[in-house]
Amino acid sequence: MNDNKIRVGITHGDTNGIGYEVILKLLEDTRLSDLCTITVYGSAKAAAFYRKAMELPQVQFNKVESASQARDGVFNIVNVVGEDLKIEPGVATEAAGAAALAALDAACADLKNGAIDVLLTAPINKHSIQSSSFSFPGHTEYLEASFSTPDEPAKALMILCADKLRVALVTAHMPLAKVPAAITKELVLERIEQFDSSLRRDFGVHSPRIAVLSLNPHAGESGLLGSEESEVIAPAIAEARAKKILAFGPYPSDGFFGSGQFAAFDGVLAMYHDQGLTPFKTIAMDAGVNFTAGLPYVRTSPDHGTGYDIAAKGQASPDSMRSALYAALDIYRARQNHDEAHKSPLKPQQSSNR
Amino acid sequence: MNDNKIRVGITHGDTNGIGYEVILKLLEDTRLSDLCTITVYGSAKAAAFYRKAMELPQVQFNKVESASQARDGVFNIVNVVGEDLKIEPGVATEAAGAAALAALDAACADLKNGAIDVLLTAPINKHSIQSSSFSFPGHTEYLEASFSTPDEPAKALMILCADKLRVALVTAHMPLAKVPAAITKELVLERIEQFDSSLRRDFGVHSPRIAVLSLNPHAGESGLLGSEESEVIAPAIAEARAKKILAFGPYPSDGFFGSGQFAAFDGVLAMYHDQGLTPFKTIAMDAGVNFTAGLPYVRTSPDHGTGYDIAAKGQASPDSMRSALYAALDIYRARQNHDEAHKSPLKPQQSSNR
Repeated sequence: MNDNKIRVGITHGDTNGIGYEVILKLLEDTRLSDLCTITVYGSAKAAAFYRKAMELPQVQFNKVESASQARDGVFNIVNVVGEDLKIEPGVATEAAGAAALAALDAACADLKNGAIDVLLTAPINKHSIQSSSFSFPGHTEYLEASFSTPDEPAKALMILCADKLRVALVTAHMPLAKVPAAITKELVLERIEQFDSSLRRDFGVHSPRIAVLSLNPHAGESGLLGSEESEVIAPAIAEARAKKILAFGPYPSDGFFGSGQFAAFDGVLAMYHDQGLTPFKTIAMDAGVNFTAGLPYVRTSPDHGTGYDIAAKGQASPDSMRSALYAALDIYRARQNHDEAHKSPLKPQQSSNR
Repeated sequence: MNDNKIRVGITHGDTNGIGYEVILKLLEDTRLSDLCTITVYGSAKAAAFYRKAMELPQVQFNKVESASQARDGVFNIVNVVGEDLKIEPGVATEAAGAAALAALDAACADLKNGAIDVLLTAPINKHSIQSSSFSFPGHTEYLEASFSTPDEPAKALMILCADKLRVALVTAHMPLAKVPAAITKELVLERIEQFDSSLRRDFGVHSPRIAVLSLNPHAGESGLLGSEESEVIAPAIAEARAKKILAFGPYPSDGFFGSGQFAAFDGVLAMYHDQGLTPFKTIAMDAGVNFTAGLPYVRTSPDHGTGYDIAAKGQASPDSMRSALYAALDIYRARQNHDEAHKSPLKPQQSSNR
């Protein structure tokens, strides 16, 4: 069994945030190296700095040139930045942003060349990471672009999960003023289909029941408070149903979460970031995981940010990071099982068949 | 003490919803008549229908022509509609909407002429209540117009409360597409000031700490995800601070509620309906109360809707209605205490002084 350990890449994120703290606290449990092969894309210097600041001398790394040299039974680290990286806990600096980007670039390259199987990302500062090669509102959009080819654009779907609660977003990192125009019937339908297929393939749900939230308060109150429900969302749900997808709604988000109705569904599709994430975090607290569905590789992250206000203070909880690691492993295995179960029993006759 | 019992008016709301059920279940506890003098603005026929359907024969009413004749020690009812009102549980009908409006009109008139002290409203169907004399998206806006005079427009502020959690809204019943343009510095500042004065006068908080939420995800991420935080909300907070109001923020709503940060504040000001109500209901469940601040009279309501799907099935919980009644009594007393404590110790020299 151990010959096939899943190879996990962890990017260190913003080096002035709580990224190293949650990584070190996670790796304090050395039994993780029996479970999977971990490579941190980071900086041995930064790791040493936080190891000392956090008083976690027992977390040791095996320095490797690349993830392909990662050893089993230990935690590996690849240096993605020079020794001159300055660590300034709690401060947004260009250097910390560049370090975060270097880790992401290296890890994505290794996903593509097969050196790692899954990606776990520590939080970035979306502002300081911006550069000529990173002009995205967040990880999700960067990864989408990374794994797109001219022939096949990757379409990522952001899913927050904690136990049986899974919340996906139609729109994610977008100013609220742009949301209403972005909510089209085509996009809502596409998201429902993506969510349905991810719930089947990544979470092993046989016939997923999906609740779709409304855009307007009171689900538009029959048109008094907006028409997107009747003109856009309900028709998208109807088309999904015609395709045998168990989509329901649109439900007003306040009553839906307040009455606990969400527990009756395998997935909840929210129209915009705060509509989905606010109740999700209110319910799931530290245990939440952000999973990017729709990509050729499995990527998860904790559902918290860089936490500058508590950086290097020893207060950060590794719970969400730990949940994100386990979720990545679970989803990777679920995909393998699903693909195994659904692969064609016939041998391809020509290479062009696949 | 009992000579000065607070006189409570309760409007029956939509007669095909769960209004009567929650009123009857509330009044099942006859000790309430020792606490306050209650007059229901409704229909003796509808009350009888639901009393039978809910198997609550013990809840009896004293029929009066007007609230000014309400008797102490019993529950009073004023007929606001004719005997021909047809009850169709779970169905939106024009007749049920007209009955809801008749109750509101009568109760507002009695607030103005002093026959009742506070108003408790059962839920209306915002669609079927629309008529030539009701063209408002909800109770709040109707009451605002009702109590406005040409010289002094009433400015209502919707506050949801449950124990120490109080969430107020900058915009309330408005399509989401109209929200961003409605969020102006002037309006946010006005809402902060209204909230501050209501927390002092209606809730007896001496120096209220108010958290202001952001409009965009991640509080705009320093401009990457929208500029309203830096251009509108932060300047409004700064002006409030200059006026010695303890306003803080803007905070992104997901992290704010997820991390439990809300517990450190006396009030939370949300930018729009679902942003405030979704986490509020997720946290407060059945115990939530909707209070309309900024009016000359105290008005509360439960935080649920007409509940057509469970109408006349005996499943509705009166908890929110009960909380709304107690909140109305508490707020009425807090206002009296506040006004007593803050009134000028000097006798007015001329009538024009007040």
